Amino acid sequence: MAITIDDIRAAHQRIAPHIYRSPCSYSLSLSRLCGCNVYCKLDHLQMTGSFKERGARNRLELLSPEERQRGVVAVSAGNHAQGLAWQGSRMGIPVTVVMPVWASLPKVANCRALGAEIFLHGDSMAIARIEAERLRDARNLVFIPPFDDDAIIAGQGTMALEIIEDVPTVDTIVVPVGGGGLIAGIGIALKALRPDAKLVGVEPRNAATLDAALKAGRPVPIQPLPTLGDGLALAQIGDRCFGPIQSTLDELVLVDEAQIATAVLRLMELEKTVVEGSASTVLAALLAQRAYFIGRTVVLVLSGGNIDVTQLGRIIERGLVAEGRLCRLTAAISDLPGSLWKVLQVVAMTGASVRQVEHDRNFAPGDVSQVAITLVLETRDREHITAVIAALARAGVACTAQ
Amino acid sequence: MAITIDDIRAAHQRIAPHIYRSPCSYSLSLSRLCGCNVYCKLDHLQMTGSFKERGARNRLELLSPEERQRGVVAVSAGNHAQGLAWQGSRMGIPVTVVMPVWASLPKVANCRALGAEIFLHGDSMAIARIEAERLRDARNLVFIPPFDDDAIIAGQGTMALEIIEDVPTVDTIVVPVGGGGLIAGIGIALKALRPDAKLVGVEPRNAATLDAALKAGRPVPIQPLPTLGDGLALAQIGDRCFGPIQSTLDELVLVDEAQIATAVLRLMELEKTVVEGSASTVLAALLAQRAYFIGRTVVLVLSGGNIDVTQLGRIIERGLVAEGRLCRLTAAISDLPGSLWKVLQVVAMTGASVRQVEHDRNFAPGDVSQVAITLVLETRDREHITAVIAALARAGVACTAQ
Repeated sequence: MAITIDDIRAAHQRIAPHIYRSPCSYSLSLSRLCGCNVYCKLDHLQMTGSFKERGARNRLELLSPEERQRGVVAVSAGNHAQGLAWQGSRMGIPVTVVMPVWASLPKVANCRALGAEIFLHGDSMAIARIEAERLRDARNLVFIPPFDDDAIIAGQGTMALEIIEDVPTVDTIVVPVGGGGLIAGIGIALKALRPDAKLVGVEPRNAATLDAALKAGRPVPIQPLPTLGDGLALAQIGDRCFGPIQSTLDELVLVDEAQIATAVLRLMELEKTVVEGSASTVLAALLAQRAYFIGRTVVLVLSGGNIDVTQLGRIIERGLVAEGRLCRLTAAISDLPGSLWKVLQVVAMTGASVRQVEHDRNFAPGDVSQVAITLVLETRDREHITAVIAALARAGVACTAQ
Repeated sequence: MAITIDDIRAAHQRIAPHIYRSPCSYSLSLSRLCGCNVYCKLDHLQMTGSFKERGARNRLELLSPEERQRGVVAVSAGNHAQGLAWQGSRMGIPVTVVMPVWASLPKVANCRALGAEIFLHGDSMAIARIEAERLRDARNLVFIPPFDDDAIIAGQGTMALEIIEDVPTVDTIVVPVGGGGLIAGIGIALKALRPDAKLVGVEPRNAATLDAALKAGRPVPIQPLPTLGDGLALAQIGDRCFGPIQSTLDELVLVDEAQIATAVLRLMELEKTVVEGSASTVLAALLAQRAYFIGRTVVLVLSGGNIDVTQLGRIIERGLVAEGRLCRLTAAISDLPGSLWKVLQVVAMTGASVRQVEHDRNFAPGDVSQVAITLVLETRDREHITAVIAALARAGVACTAQ
C-alpha cells in the first residue's frame, strides 16, 4: 500500500516531541548569489548531525512493547547508525549496529558513546549486512533498514511538513538522493500540500543510483565511484522509494566532485555552517543550474553535517583549487644561481602568495642545465593565475598550470 | 558621563529592526562535554558575519541629517569595516574605509560589494588611521571608531538584552576581548539586569590588552604577537571601555594558540558552525577552566565567523596536531633496501594512516649508512601516537615525535 500524506502527518505527531525542530532560515547571501530566494533547512543540526533520526524514531515508535524489549539491529557506516543509537537509547531500546571495518573511528566512537553495541565486521556493507542478519536471527532482534521501509520513508517526509509551515511560499525543494528515503518522503508530502511546487533531486555524478533507475524504469545496481558525497554512495535506489520518487520528481541534477567541494566551501564562507559533502550537493545543484531556479523560492535541504575534519581539510584544498584560489605551476628553469630567486620575484610582484616550492635538479626535462620547479601558490581567482603565468612568460619562464 | 542600561535599551530600540535577531541556542553536545548548561549566542550569523553591525548601526542612527549626507570614514582591516559598510549602505550613508595594504582580499572585495569606498593605505593600522583622519578633514566626513566610543559600546551591549530575554536563567556570559567595546557593553547590561551573574572575559595570551590594563590599573600599550584570534590583536584596550570593564568583570581567562585552534575544530565538529579564531576563544576558555563553570548556565558569545578558508585549513591542521590526531615522527634508519618498507609495515599494523613520507639520504644524522626519514601520520589521539612510537621501538627504530 502506498505511503500517503496521512502517514507522514501521523509520523510527525509521533516524532515531533523527540527531534529538534530545525530552523529553515532565509539566506540573504545565497539569495543574492543565486538570484532567487534561498532558505536552508538546517537538519544537519539534529543532535546526531543528520535527518536520519526522523525515520529511525518513527520506526522505533512503531515497535511493539515486546519488540522494544528484544532490541534492534542495523547496518550502517554512518548517520543511520548514529540516529538510531541516539533515539534508541532515549527510548530504552537496545541498539546493535554492524559497521564495516573501515568505518571512520569518530563515528564508531560516537555510536558507542550513544549507547549502541557495535560490531566491526567485513570490508563491505554487503558483508556487514550478512552479519547483521545473522545477529538478528541469533539474538532475535528487529532489523531496521536505513531507507527502504515505509515507516522510515514517512519519518523522513516529516521534514517537508516543517518546511511548508515555516516557508509557506516555498515553490521548490532541493533534496540529496542516496537510497532515496528522504526524497521519497518529502516528495509525497510536498505534492500533497503544494501540487505546483517543484521537487528537485541531486546526486553525485559518481553515484547516480536514481539516474540509473529512471533510465531503466526500475531500481538497478550501479558501481558507485568514490565521492565527496560519500553518504550518497549506494549501489541501488530503494525499491520502496523508487515509486514515490518517480511520481513526484520534477528534475534530477547530477553534480561533479569539484562542484561538491566548492559548495562545502561556500556554505562555510557565507552561511558559517559545516555540512558533509552529501548535503552540500544541493547548493552545488543550485549553482550549476542557476537559470532553472531564477526568481523561485527555494529550500535547500541540508541533510547532514558529519564531516570528518581531516576530510574537511582536503575538501577545502579541492574547493580552493576549483575556484582558482590555489594553483600549482611547473616550469623548467636554468640551474644557474639566482634563477629561482628571479622566478619568485616575478611571482611576488603579481601578489600571489607562495605556499610551497620544490626545486629538483635530478629529474628535470630537457638538458642537464635545466632544473624542474613546482610552485604551489595562493591566488585570488583564475584571472590572477592567468596573470601570474603571463608575467612569468614575459620574464622568459614558460610554465604549466596543473 | 557613564553609559547606563538605559542607553543600551535605547540603542536596542534603535537598531533592533535593522539587525538579525540571532538565536541563542542550547547545545546538548557542549553541555555534556563541559558539565554545565551551554548556550551559544550565534551573533556570527549577522549578515556581515559579526556583532560589529550593532555598534555601527547605533552610531549611524545618532548622526544628524546633515552628517548623514556628508558620510562617514573608518579604519579597519575587517569586521568593523564590513558592518559599517552594510549598515551605511542600507541607510544611504556614504561609507569610506581605509584598510592597511595587507588587508585580506576577500574582506576588501566584500566591503566594496557592500558599497563602501575603499582605500588601501600603509602597512599598519596606525598609518591607515592617519590617512583616515586626513580624509575626514579633507572631505568633511564623520570618523566612526571601532570600539572606543559610547554609542558603539551601547550598541554592542544590546546583545546582552537578547541573551537575557532568550535565556532568562543565564548566570554566566563569556565574551572575547579585543578593544573592549563588546564586553564593556555586555557588562553594563548584565550587571544592571542580573547583578549576581558572572562576566567572564577571554583574551589570547598573545594579545592580552585587558590583562595588561588590569595589572597597570589603566589602559597601557602592548606589543601583540601573531594570534589565530587576530580580530583581538590590538595594541591597547579602549579608554572608554576600560572603566565599565573594570567595574563589571569577574574573571579574565587567557588562552593559548593550541586551545584556540582546538576550539574552532570542536565548534565545527559538534555545533557544525564556523567561527573565526577570535570567537572560538570563548569555548577555549570554557574547556581550559572547566571547574569554574561546572553546573552553571553559560552563554558563549560567538562574536564573528569571518575566517579565511585558507586560514581555516591551517587551523584544522593545528587543531589536529594539538589533539594528537596528526603527528610527525622522525627517525634515522639504515639505507639498506627494504628499511623504509619495514618501518611502514610496523606503522600499518598500528592502524595509523600515512599522510606524508620523506626519505633523505643526504642530511641524515650519524654515519653514512643512515637515512633520515620523516613520517606524517593520522592518528586517533595521543595514546595512539605513543603506541606507534612503542611499536617502532620494538622493531628497533628509535623515533622522535615533533
